[in-house]
Amino acid sequence: MKTQKQISIKQYRPSEGFISRYQKLIREVVIPYQYNVLCDRAEGSEKSHVVQNFINAAAALRGEDVGDGFYGMVFQDSDAAKWLEAVGYSLAVYPDPELEKTADSLIDIIAAAQDEDGYLNTYFTIKDRDKRWTNLLEGHELYCSGHFMEAAVSYYNGTGKDKLLKVMLKNAEHIYKHFITEKHEGYPGHPEVELALLKLYRATGEKHCLELAEHFINVRGENGGDFYKREKDLRDWTVWGNNAEDGFYQQSYAPVREQSDAVGHSVRAVYLYTAMADLASETDDEELLEACRRLWSSITDRRMYITGGIGSTGIGEAFTVDYDLPNDTAYAETCASCGLMFFASRMLESCLDGRYGDVMERAFYNTVLAGMQLDGKRFFYVNPLEVIPGISGIAATHWHDKPRRPEWFACACCPPNVARTIAAFGTYAYGEGDSTAYCHLYAAGEVDFSFGLKLRCETDFPYGFSVKYTVLQGAGTLAVRIPAWSEYTSATLNGGEISLRTEHGYIYVNVSEGDVLDIVLDDRARYVYSSSKAAENTGCAAIQRGALVYCFEGVDNGGDVLSLVLDDSKEIAVGETKSELGGASVLTVKGSRTAQTDSLYSFEKPEKIPVELTAVPYYTWGNRGENQMRVWLPY
Amino acid sequence: MKTQKQISIKQYRPSEGFISRYQKLIREVVIPYQYNVLCDRAEGSEKSHVVQNFINAAAALRGEDVGDGFYGMVFQDSDAAKWLEAVGYSLAVYPDPELEKTADSLIDIIAAAQDEDGYLNTYFTIKDRDKRWTNLLEGHELYCSGHFMEAAVSYYNGTGKDKLLKVMLKNAEHIYKHFITEKHEGYPGHPEVELALLKLYRATGEKHCLELAEHFINVRGENGGDFYKREKDLRDWTVWGNNAEDGFYQQSYAPVREQSDAVGHSVRAVYLYTAMADLASETDDEELLEACRRLWSSITDRRMYITGGIGSTGIGEAFTVDYDLPNDTAYAETCASCGLMFFASRMLESCLDGRYGDVMERAFYNTVLAGMQLDGKRFFYVNPLEVIPGISGIAATHWHDKPRRPEWFACACCPPNVARTIAAFGTYAYGEGDSTAYCHLYAAGEVDFSFGLKLRCETDFPYGFSVKYTVLQGAGTLAVRIPAWSEYTSATLNGGEISLRTEHGYIYVNVSEGDVLDIVLDDRARYVYSSSKAAENTGCAAIQRGALVYCFEGVDNGGDVLSLVLDDSKEIAVGETKSELGGASVLTVKGSRTAQTDSLYSFEKPEKIPVELTAVPYYTWGNRGENQMRVWLPY
Repeated sequence: MKTQKQISIKQYRPSEGFISRYQKLIREVVIPYQYNVLCDRAEGSEKSHVVQNFINAAAALRGEDVGDGFYGMVFQDSDAAKWLEAVGYSLAVYPDPELEKTADSLIDIIAAAQDEDGYLNTYFTIKDRDKRWTNLLEGHELYCSGHFMEAAVSYYNGTGKDKLLKVMLKNAEHIYKHFITEKHEGYPGHPEVELALLKLYRATGEKHCLELAEHFINVRGENGGDFYKREKDLRDWTVWGNNAEDGFYQQSYAPVREQSDAVGHSVRAVYLYTAMADLASETDDEELLEACRRLWSSITDRRMYITGGIGSTGIGEAFTVDYDLPNDTAYAETCASCGLMFFASRMLESCLDGRYGDVMERAFYNTVLAGMQLDGKRFFYVNPLEVIPGISGIAATHWHDKPRRPEWFACACCPPNVARTIAAFGTYAYGEGDSTAYCHLYAAGEVDFSFGLKLRCETDFPYGFSVKYTVLQGAGTLAVRIPAWSEYTSATLNGGEISLRTEHGYIYVNVSEGDVLDIVLDDRARYVYSSSKAAENTGCAAIQRGALVYCFEGVDNGGDVLSLVLDDSKEIAVGETKSELGGASVLTVKGSRTAQTDSLYSFEKPEKIPVELTAVPYYTWGNRGENQMRVWLPY
Repeated sequence: MKTQKQISIKQYRPSEGFISRYQKLIREVVIPYQYNVLCDRAEGSEKSHVVQNFINAAAALRGEDVGDGFYGMVFQDSDAAKWLEAVGYSLAVYPDPELEKTADSLIDIIAAAQDEDGYLNTYFTIKDRDKRWTNLLEGHELYCSGHFMEAAVSYYNGTGKDKLLKVMLKNAEHIYKHFITEKHEGYPGHPEVELALLKLYRATGEKHCLELAEHFINVRGENGGDFYKREKDLRDWTVWGNNAEDGFYQQSYAPVREQSDAVGHSVRAVYLYTAMADLASETDDEELLEACRRLWSSITDRRMYITGGIGSTGIGEAFTVDYDLPNDTAYAETCASCGLMFFASRMLESCLDGRYGDVMERAFYNTVLAGMQLDGKRFFYVNPLEVIPGISGIAATHWHDKPRRPEWFACACCPPNVARTIAAFGTYAYGEGDSTAYCHLYAAGEVDFSFGLKLRCETDFPYGFSVKYTVLQGAGTLAVRIPAWSEYTSATLNGGEISLRTEHGYIYVNVSEGDVLDIVLDDRARYVYSSSKAAENTGCAAIQRGALVYCFEGVDNGGDVLSLVLDDSKEIAVGETKSELGGASVLTVKGSRTAQTDSLYSFEKPEKIPVELTAVPYYTWGNRGENQMRVWLPY
């Protein structure tokens, strides 16, 4: 049973602050830019062809010859879906008739590409309709449907318009018929539709959606996941030559209830776990929830970077094994950290524990934000914790670890994922129970809770450490997460100090109209040490202040960070605010620089020259040209 | 012009010492075991089929139908060649009629598999004779020929028997006809035949061999190495799907004289450079020698592990870029370090500089020896500098880094390479000029120099640090390399101290019969620091004593080396001698152990508990079961 649930998008109205500035960037730069990409109008980026694919698919349905009319990845459609989803979130809070008109037209184009029977996918509609549903392993049909379902719900919630919702209900019904009524075997190669069907179910009450989500989750991994092998034996074509027998890659090596280690493609993994957590609380499935807890622990206790990045290898963009967390060859895909937030948010609905919020915050303020250049125009897919120009992006093992954010890629999963996650930030930040208002993350703005409480939150987080909650209307319990990093926290209610006894990371305060709850969080910048089981970080420390993990870039440190050594016995000072880093505060620490030696190996201990080191928030790195970067420094 | 050259195998007779014990192991264990493998009689190892391939090839030549009679890698033949080469070296010094008879029979079998026109290769003879010479990129015909040429020269030098020598001269003539007389384009995908042809030329005086070696070296990389692309366009089959356009992998991106960075498959690279260095001094080709110097510097100044391992990535078993030297995902193939010794030895023939001997010593005593289990029965192909059971050999990025030496592989390049390198150690250790006896490496035994000087060397190196040279007969100059690691060295001639002024790393002493030169090398164990450009080693130190690099294994250090920290301000003590490590002396150092934390990341600085750390020679690691191992420790 869900103890509390995410608020819906319209319940939160941001006020001026860190989040609203990011949402403004999404609205003013990212959404328009991404639309131009979808329409092949953006300069300098690779061809997308997304809109044209839909136009061609519609023509194909009318029987016209569109020849080789599909271009892009097999999951190219999903870019449009993620864009529409972000637009829905944005319109919910910032009405924009022009943007809405643009989105409506795109929805018309998409709707026209839906087959009479409800099928919707341009790759198969254009290329070969007979191949529909014959390659679940690689085909991404269910993945794309899932993203359109999410978009449909978002757009409906944001605008009240249900055209896309109807399209996707019809599509869901088509899928239901195929897999349930007609009993075709199989489940998605890339999980996504499961979590989307649950959203669609909640938005429409359509039971088939719930049933279908449950079905896909339950059949996954039956008989050791041999479905994909049998499926492959029946076809003579492939998209990428995926290994049908790699049950780890697609999380199908065992029924999901028996899984304990987070394995395989990290985005697939967290999308699946998100759906599992959602379904578990929706259906009171304690066995399923227990699997989610194990998988959560596997990720966050043993397989997660300090930045909230997950999936440490580029080989299969995947999880590897416990404590294998290389900094320089990390994959740590931006999308995977978005997915980790989704998983955390769903876990919170049945397990009220600050750890979920802590990880959500870590993932968002570090890896998710790092995914986007500060001007919203370039994007990291891969988020290493150490970058060395000359090696990173060049050596075969470091090919994926670019020293600079690329423009929109041919495979554009991450940019729209960042956009939709930022645009929907309020739904991760706030939740509600029967009479309790949950504040999982700090986000300035006003929230209308369904049980009648109106709350205002004022804060400059993550650079400001005081958070003020004012009850504008109504009464109830205010549950505020106190992050694990905040060792010294104080709270006052209407000026009078109150107890800070937390229950699983939350303080619970009964409030009514006019009450003011002030919380002051621990603003110290501190050294972080890693378990020595994580071999890459032995002898090293990192720096964290509040939610932000810091890093050292060459541009602030004489060009060379590899020679820097921290003196972790010294205090860390908060330094200047950098306008070129969007107003981020830098930190300065004492340390030394190891003198360069002529030879690769030497018996002479290299001299250490005392220096002051400057650190910047990890999410801001790579905004000032190519240079060395390191999160963990020897101390 | 060669200032000095390697002695031939019979000139050195080992006496009791480290080298002779290893040669005994090769003679008594490795050579018999490897012969059983070649004949598919060894238990527990993968099928080799090498001898049967030759038998089947001979049958195929007689027109018999041998069906699918070839088994193994395309270069499977070369295992027999490397075995015979090692046998030749061994018989030169330790006559063994039984072994010689076995080898003679194998040579008969091989000779019978030679085609009338001189062609010799079982893969193509059995599978499809029409494909001969149509896939130089992958086919390894020239590579196998090269190994048989080396074997022929070794066996002739060791036994005086020339049957294989004649076979290979006929084979060389066949190759000459194809590439020179008939002007077929092309050069070996895997360099090897070039260095072998030069050996064959010196053994026989056959000018065509020199001309052919020179030809292959000169045409390599012409027109950006487009030959492989054109070759590929003409055929409809492939062995492994090698990328014909990857000019780096096969060192063909530019003419060899224009190359500066050591790139691509590391074994191919050093085999090529060995031939280049040999040819350069053979033909007084200063331009070619200059390229060799640049490539040497690229390897040893920027791309070599402290262990003398080279080729830092498993992706293509290749060099990457400067200072990219990961410890845990290292490739550092045993064969590549053998090849580095070959390259060093050839460089020394024209450039008398102790740096070449230093690297030869580093490669031999660390990576080459590490390639073989102390009992001679199992072999490492890959030589990481950090191993963590649970990650190493398991994670996709660490797949090649095994925590335990495997038995003979399907691809058995390294075991026979180690065997032949150890068996021929004397030829790397000693060289001779017109009247100068060169002692490049320390090896106990007697040497007959061609100019009439007979020398005895007594030493327990690498564990003993005194080296005594006695002139048994004749007169001349003794040139002894003083290693760069020996900061404090003393030398006496007939008991009287002599100057230790080195010239490019060598002392030169005029001696005559009865003279005794005693050298005492620096026996201190010392910390080694790496340039901070090698990101993996920042904040860390390693330990070296003499030629030996040490490492820390779990078995000596409470199971866990990841939590160890060195106190490099303390002296390193020489500890007990371990019989289970073949009599290796261990070292003990002061340091601390970082207490285990419950969480992956923590603000609390973990407690450091003082401990004594035990280090063992790197080449002995992995002989006591699977456990953690580290060369570089934080200090």
